[in-house]
Amino acid sequence: MQPNEFRRHGHVVVDWIADYLENPEQWPVLPAVRPGDLRDSLPQSPPLRGESMDAVLEDFRRLIVPATTHWNHPAFMAYFANSSTGAGVLGEALTAALNVNAMLWRTSPAATELELLTLDWLRQMLGLPDKFLGIIGDTASSNTLYALAAAREMHPQLRIRQDGMAGRPDLPKVFVYCSEEAHSSVDKALMTLGFGLSALRRIPTDDRLRMDASALDAAVENDRRAGAIPLAVVATVGTTSTTAIDPVPAIAKICEREKMWLHVDASYGGTAAILPEMRHVLDGCDRADSLVVNPHKWLFTPMDCSALYTSRPDLLKRAFQHVPEFLAVSEGEGVVNLMDYGIALGRRFRALKLWFVIRDFGVEGLQTLVREHIRIAKKLAQWIDTDPTLDRLAEVDFSTVVFRHRRPGMTANELDQHNVRVLEKVNATREVYLSHTRVRGSYALRIAIGNIHTTEADVRRALELVKEAGTLT
Amino acid sequence: MQPNEFRRHGHVVVDWIADYLENPEQWPVLPAVRPGDLRDSLPQSPPLRGESMDAVLEDFRRLIVPATTHWNHPAFMAYFANSSTGAGVLGEALTAALNVNAMLWRTSPAATELELLTLDWLRQMLGLPDKFLGIIGDTASSNTLYALAAAREMHPQLRIRQDGMAGRPDLPKVFVYCSEEAHSSVDKALMTLGFGLSALRRIPTDDRLRMDASALDAAVENDRRAGAIPLAVVATVGTTSTTAIDPVPAIAKICEREKMWLHVDASYGGTAAILPEMRHVLDGCDRADSLVVNPHKWLFTPMDCSALYTSRPDLLKRAFQHVPEFLAVSEGEGVVNLMDYGIALGRRFRALKLWFVIRDFGVEGLQTLVREHIRIAKKLAQWIDTDPTLDRLAEVDFSTVVFRHRRPGMTANELDQHNVRVLEKVNATREVYLSHTRVRGSYALRIAIGNIHTTEADVRRALELVKEAGTLT
Repeated sequence: MQPNEFRRHGHVVVDWIADYLENPEQWPVLPAVRPGDLRDSLPQSPPLRGESMDAVLEDFRRLIVPATTHWNHPAFMAYFANSSTGAGVLGEALTAALNVNAMLWRTSPAATELELLTLDWLRQMLGLPDKFLGIIGDTASSNTLYALAAAREMHPQLRIRQDGMAGRPDLPKVFVYCSEEAHSSVDKALMTLGFGLSALRRIPTDDRLRMDASALDAAVENDRRAGAIPLAVVATVGTTSTTAIDPVPAIAKICEREKMWLHVDASYGGTAAILPEMRHVLDGCDRADSLVVNPHKWLFTPMDCSALYTSRPDLLKRAFQHVPEFLAVSEGEGVVNLMDYGIALGRRFRALKLWFVIRDFGVEGLQTLVREHIRIAKKLAQWIDTDPTLDRLAEVDFSTVVFRHRRPGMTANELDQHNVRVLEKVNATREVYLSHTRVRGSYALRIAIGNIHTTEADVRRALELVKEAGTLT
Repeated sequence: MQPNEFRRHGHVVVDWIADYLENPEQWPVLPAVRPGDLRDSLPQSPPLRGESMDAVLEDFRRLIVPATTHWNHPAFMAYFANSSTGAGVLGEALTAALNVNAMLWRTSPAATELELLTLDWLRQMLGLPDKFLGIIGDTASSNTLYALAAAREMHPQLRIRQDGMAGRPDLPKVFVYCSEEAHSSVDKALMTLGFGLSALRRIPTDDRLRMDASALDAAVENDRRAGAIPLAVVATVGTTSTTAIDPVPAIAKICEREKMWLHVDASYGGTAAILPEMRHVLDGCDRADSLVVNPHKWLFTPMDCSALYTSRPDLLKRAFQHVPEFLAVSEGEGVVNLMDYGIALGRRFRALKLWFVIRDFGVEGLQTLVREHIRIAKKLAQWIDTDPTLDRLAEVDFSTVVFRHRRPGMTANELDQHNVRVLEKVNATREVYLSHTRVRGSYALRIAIGNIHTTEADVRRALELVKEAGTLT
């Protein structure tokens, strides 16, 4: 593509994006496609000759966009939000243009230093102490895995990095703890790291679905008495299912006493701490060894951008640093080479979009948006609480509301089946996209508010659709 | 940012990118910055109020760009190339705008199906059989880790997924094999997966730095006799250091006999197989269980885009699938949910840029570029071979040339030190960026050709700078 062609197509793309972000509701939130429809509509082999970009962009508009689930749609309330924003898009376009690989400081000083600086800005916004170093990963799942890999390095005498865990009769069983409500990424990390699913102890929760710290204490003591190594605890600030907040101060105390790594999954909930009135959700997190929060969730930054903070960067580095000759460079003490802190060697310039977003909105601008989402969620909770056909099933600490429709005289099982049908019916309208979860075994509907376009009216409409479906089902 | 503001700034950004990609050599390839310079030049705290995007973009141009190592520069020959292209940038901008998370088919049918289709296009371009399913990961390092995690699932009786490896006196030692020249990502994968660095057997190489298949055979037999489990072999097509090609057919035969997983790291070299005359570099790879090739390296697609092909998607899925209630959906048989094939739950729409690039260039257009890079590399090899002050240290099978400057009468150690200084001097010009490696212990210079902007004249100039530095040092 010649520069002038790029200019022409680029302007077309910019105008398309401007229209799209202005009216993301011009398409239904859920597309009317069945599995295979898109693939079958496209050539099954690559073109021999180059095609005109006009044709490519036409296919994008005609085939790709209508087969897309619109995460930008104001009625996308199924999962924690994911907002595209003008500033974020401009950042990503420039990142793709520079196309640096920030594996070493030298291979991109700007990307390396802006990543550290921008995550320090975010650290200040969250009220975390300056002992935390922040690094960008792709997702909270990866960052939680990195944290648990670093936790292994708290025990150099186990020599896991060097000698591994297979064929080691000397090695005791290792356990990691999280609540019954914690995210599946903890299981996945333990599978991947070679600890196995059975290394995870899921601790019961209290009446508000928060980890029971005394049960944690007992489990750790039991395991230690049996000769195992209690390695780490993953506490959650804002669980995926119901946004519950584990008692981090009490958990931190146990971790300190037992010399366990404390990782906090605040990937969704942590963002709320940019509000002074919500700062308390991170109480105790200053004592964590690591914490993950996702600007690509509730901070209006395009995917992927997940922030991993750690007060033990030395251990994170010990878990992942392995430098071959062709990458051996010395820039002096204190120079960070980002490749040393995770699995991937190649690294995109992901800080640029976050830096653009923070500067474009300003801290106060971001606070206004997050505050409004929480306000709408509280309002939704009120509507549900005053409606005899609806039952709220969890506290609303953030911007996500979990509830169900009810009909008098239904058994527990019938209520579950009724709500399965309600959700199917609501999503089949393709006017709104909601998700489900289970709360203490009961099937529940989830409305997650956090998209930059979502208004009170959108949420009101979603609730009306639930009530309509509930009545007609 | 209002739509009209986005439009205005978007057009400015498009014009900047057009100028940048037209003249990437307007900045020196290596920036004149010391560690900390950029960070110190920026505010240490985030702005309270939003700033004008004009000011943000001005800072980008004034501070970020001059602190960047320009991977787009035609004289960037340090590492395997990384080309930004107009089609790729447009794809990334649209990906950031749609901002879908393709964790489930339902959360983005288009992103899911286009990923599978586009990687099937690439599979056809590489001449791989259709038993291979292709999925996009961030980097070859991650994809190699995924392959080795899948290899574990060839042995369900070991119950590693469920029971892990710690505290398992029943579990024998497990070994993975690669050549002495294989990439450090194999070590890193074994550290991460809990096998430990000592689980890696680095097999000696022959006179052309290719894995010695008979030495592999002997090592596997030894380990098996000692009661260990030979799990997998990582063969390389185009090693990072010298682009050597392991004898994949002979290795495949051993793997088949020993029931070991065969993973092929063709992250750089694999791309050459889009040329009919280079198709042979993938000989034997049809018998591999997995293979990684990086379109973000030599296929003109912005980072990150690394393709993992596997003929055992069932095992890859068994290694990583773990579905919590809130993500439990059923679309019927055969529907792929991409979250089941790796660590990350969230997934960007990375196929779009690759689909744009393949359509924009066409297969023949891509072939022309790759062929030209190989031609220039052969030419460079000729120049070196006919110059008495230069020694070539490795075969040129692809587009990377490894050599050193020599002076009569120097000892081996003096030659190493001399070439260290030559490289420092060359890179200090900031006119060209080269890297180094070691070939059988000798310090060597590396010229890697693959950037879309690099011409024969650029490579000629790089060699002149080496010769000048060699003479003056």
